[in-house]
Amino acid sequence: MKPLEQGSIIPLYYQVKQRLDARIKSGEWRPGDKIDSENQLMTVFNVSRNTAKKAIEEMVQEGTLFRIQGKGTFVSHPKFEQSLGGFYSFSQVLKEKGFNPSDIVIEVDEVEPPAAVIEGLQLAADENVVMMKRVRCADGEPIILEASYMPKSIVQNKEDLFEVGVTSLYGLLASRYGVTVVRAKEAFEPVLIREQESEYLKTEVGKPALLLERTAYDTHDTPVEFCISIVRGDRCRFYTDLV
Amino acid sequence: MKPLEQGSIIPLYYQVKQRLDARIKSGEWRPGDKIDSENQLMTVFNVSRNTAKKAIEEMVQEGTLFRIQGKGTFVSHPKFEQSLGGFYSFSQVLKEKGFNPSDIVIEVDEVEPPAAVIEGLQLAADENVVMMKRVRCADGEPIILEASYMPKSIVQNKEDLFEVGVTSLYGLLASRYGVTVVRAKEAFEPVLIREQESEYLKTEVGKPALLLERTAYDTHDTPVEFCISIVRGDRCRFYTDLV
Repeated sequence: MKPLEQGSIIPLYYQVKQRLDARIKSGEWRPGDKIDSENQLMTVFNVSRNTAKKAIEEMVQEGTLFRIQGKGTFVSHPKFEQSLGGFYSFSQVLKEKGFNPSDIVIEVDEVEPPAAVIEGLQLAADENVVMMKRVRCADGEPIILEASYMPKSIVQNKEDLFEVGVTSLYGLLASRYGVTVVRAKEAFEPVLIREQESEYLKTEVGKPALLLERTAYDTHDTPVEFCISIVRGDRCRFYTDLV
Repeated sequence: MKPLEQGSIIPLYYQVKQRLDARIKSGEWRPGDKIDSENQLMTVFNVSRNTAKKAIEEMVQEGTLFRIQGKGTFVSHPKFEQSLGGFYSFSQVLKEKGFNPSDIVIEVDEVEPPAAVIEGLQLAADENVVMMKRVRCADGEPIILEASYMPKSIVQNKEDLFEVGVTSLYGLLASRYGVTVVRAKEAFEPVLIREQESEYLKTEVGKPALLLERTAYDTHDTPVEFCISIVRGDRCRFYTDLV
């Protein structure tokens, strides 16, 4: 391991923090893992107990690490927890937890649908769709990159979608088009962040993410929206109850 | 792009397959993505239509790609689909789908519990647990690396756990210890495969995986098992219904 820079204007405790952060970001230490003890950090980085303590304390305060009395210091889980137990709204979940949700609509366009969309929306071979791409943020930080596809037969005027962000997508579908979403099906699998996604999500290429595909159905059980999301793995965690 | 090896004993169509496979494995093409058309492959690799066609056809037959009439060829999703809609058994799901499940118990030991286990099982500070680590396979292929932690007060004789594989873990808990698992809570987040895991799962370091944490409860609503799984992202996909 490269020694810390002794003469640097960057304080030693901060350099220790940077090294620990790097080990978490690289996936060497994962959520739930126990990190080195104060004594180990003192030896590894050749620093005083106060320096090791200060590095850990700041990371605990920032929420990156947590302590269990008599057991050690551990890597925290991502801060946004999302239940899969029922039909949910990302914005609502954030609000309930005291975060400020915001959406940035990046693109609205009429497109030829990808394979998953054709299947999900049960489209005819030549049917085009309206696509809305948006970045969903919590307290201004980008968390999810989402592309929603809807049949053109529903979204007659794609410009309407620029109102999403002020109102919710499902709110707009209901008020403007009389389409009420009542249930959804979701599939998810782990993937790596790609370049274009990393720019929108302000994270690095190759980081773990969840690819989430949602099909939303209206009161007639007709699929009305197919949505492909990339969810930052370092920010979100999902849970569910199995009975 | 490096040209194909023209004088090689490896047939050209097979070299095209290898190149396409590499683009899928690297994450450049993801499940649901449209791959290059026959015409594009002919240009990119400077091969005949028959060569391009044969490469694609084999990959469709192997299940790596699928076609939609008039739309193109797309990357398939992982083959094991697991519902989160109810309490499930990995072995049972596999059997229902015509795969042959098998478990390899790698390690059974009394250990000091990791942070997540202490919290999940609501352990006292000095309480140790019995850990069983196993690889879960489908038709002999390793899919999930699983570490189950149970309080020592339940698993009085850790050697019993070597019977798992013949019987199921929950079957054993019921028959031997009178503990019936009736519900569970699961949390999951995307991570990258680490070195030791890659050996057990016969996959590469840095590939996407799901980290799954399950807490299982008995009829008295006492947590009786905490299980940490690493699920191969190239083999498994989860889905759920939201109402």
